[in-house]
Amino acid sequence: MSIQNSEIRLSARPIGMPTMETFQFVDIDMPTPRDGQVVLKLLYLSVDPYMRGRMSDAKSYVAPFEVGKSFEGEAVAQVVESRHDRYAVGDIVFGRLPWRRYGLSDGHGIRKLDLSIAPMTAYLSVLGTTGLTAYFGLFDIGQPKPGETVVVSGAAGAVGMTVGQIAKLCGCRVVGIAGSDAKTEYLVQELGFDAAINYKTQNLHTALKEACPNGVDVYFDNVGGTVTDAVLLRINDDARIPVCGQIALYNLAKPEMGPRLLSQLVVHRALMKGFIVTDYQPRFPHAIRHLASWVRAGQLKYKETIVEGFENVPDAFLGLFRGENIGKQLVKVADPQ
Amino acid sequence: MSIQNSEIRLSARPIGMPTMETFQFVDIDMPTPRDGQVVLKLLYLSVDPYMRGRMSDAKSYVAPFEVGKSFEGEAVAQVVESRHDRYAVGDIVFGRLPWRRYGLSDGHGIRKLDLSIAPMTAYLSVLGTTGLTAYFGLFDIGQPKPGETVVVSGAAGAVGMTVGQIAKLCGCRVVGIAGSDAKTEYLVQELGFDAAINYKTQNLHTALKEACPNGVDVYFDNVGGTVTDAVLLRINDDARIPVCGQIALYNLAKPEMGPRLLSQLVVHRALMKGFIVTDYQPRFPHAIRHLASWVRAGQLKYKETIVEGFENVPDAFLGLFRGENIGKQLVKVADPQ
Repeated sequence: MSIQNSEIRLSARPIGMPTMETFQFVDIDMPTPRDGQVVLKLLYLSVDPYMRGRMSDAKSYVAPFEVGKSFEGEAVAQVVESRHDRYAVGDIVFGRLPWRRYGLSDGHGIRKLDLSIAPMTAYLSVLGTTGLTAYFGLFDIGQPKPGETVVVSGAAGAVGMTVGQIAKLCGCRVVGIAGSDAKTEYLVQELGFDAAINYKTQNLHTALKEACPNGVDVYFDNVGGTVTDAVLLRINDDARIPVCGQIALYNLAKPEMGPRLLSQLVVHRALMKGFIVTDYQPRFPHAIRHLASWVRAGQLKYKETIVEGFENVPDAFLGLFRGENIGKQLVKVADPQ
Repeated sequence: MSIQNSEIRLSARPIGMPTMETFQFVDIDMPTPRDGQVVLKLLYLSVDPYMRGRMSDAKSYVAPFEVGKSFEGEAVAQVVESRHDRYAVGDIVFGRLPWRRYGLSDGHGIRKLDLSIAPMTAYLSVLGTTGLTAYFGLFDIGQPKPGETVVVSGAAGAVGMTVGQIAKLCGCRVVGIAGSDAKTEYLVQELGFDAAINYKTQNLHTALKEACPNGVDVYFDNVGGTVTDAVLLRINDDARIPVCGQIALYNLAKPEMGPRLLSQLVVHRALMKGFIVTDYQPRFPHAIRHLASWVRAGQLKYKETIVEGFENVPDAFLGLFRGENIGKQLVKVADPQ
């Protein structure tokens, strides 16, 4: 039986919401390693909202995907053939890899995972970019203090649920905003959030007033749009607002209109700051030690929504914008050998 | 001849733009000082955009003006009668005073001015709240570095022109946005701005692109609205945006709609922060020493638009929103004795 190889390419830049046609599956040859190269078999890949930005050609902090070329993203893979000194067949590695069942690597940009600390998927969620995004956004910009109220939007997403739990460890009152009762129940009952609001069924203004009787000191924004409008009206003096994502806006062909609320920043001398987790790279090891210790102590839970099958990557990606995932959305491409 | 006394009261809370009827002139008795009190004769008073906020009863960083009671604001006055140990007849003082030709003070909240450093009106502009607002917003939030591009909106206003000149002292490229050719010419020819844009007659997007070939590193925002929309589309990575005022919005009965642009903060990991100058009070003396030294060295010019006559206070205030002033808008109430 000959092994099939294939990759997923960007067929054309989407305008508005991407569709299944945005993703093109192409059969390709199995790679042959030269000296100093390994063959990587993709096991798990991460689909993330920020990837929508890379589908456009607007100038941004990461280069856009190229039309007709493979997507790429964080993934876990296994070395299945090695002509590289430092990698042996069977090694499980992490890297930013093409969406390709089997690919080549010269070892640059990949690293071996220590599976004694956590299962491999954790390196795509709580011990990966997700956990680090929560960690640096919350600590460096949000700077929560015990007794303060922290509100998180996109709270049942991978970043949001991590933010909320860390804020609880800091002694804060934590309020999550999410899009279904299953999510809000999960946040309160499983993760210990003090309150959670379903923005699709509840009146946000009333619910925020009730859930945040002392106002909002930190607002960790993953979504933007009307949810953010509502929270901005409840901020306290000296509020800090890490702007992590604006998923509500990513698929708009042109900027949506919303009420101008910058006066709130003046009145409350509030700080709002965007950030990009890779800027904190030198501090990743330190942060991962913290995150891992909380995970081991059972103080930081993580959750994954795993779709099976390489062919289901597009649907898993599109599901992010339908709010289908609780926790980190991953795709399982293959079992390790 | 008996001396007339009068004060200006808030007649009713305005909805939208205040009118002449918002201001009620009332004849009142001449004050009689008790032991420990002085009588102050108002000489100059400052009218400022932020006072619009105090006309509403929305919760804010300063208590609202009370309906039926006198307005108040920064003013320079002269002691014309004294039963206070530390004040003598003739002293020129600064304070946050009622809009009242003659008033009483127990010395609390006023301070004697040293007119050997600067003329008395400077304490209502470049050496007063105006200069301090420019100083702390620019240095603490904007953090300009030599070679960076600093854009200032409301650039021909008292705060804006101070920001621009200080940024020039820092070695920055400085671009001002203002509302008339007289203003933009003044900024470039008199104050040394590198470029100035008339937002009423020029295409902001094109003009900004031309004036800021290397993008925008610091945007000192005094106005908000469409001007801010345009600048946000030109910010560089790590941009800093002190949000000082939103004069374009102060007279709106309800929030205006504008494009949602927070994604710009994420993409450029930009910082946006509101601030209130009084929060920096402990550092005022230090800042005033800097400002005064630049003024003395001729490196920091200031300009005042002075309207004569207590009866013209309302018109001077309303003129702020018609963009009539270049530099600090003051009202001269009386000559010193």
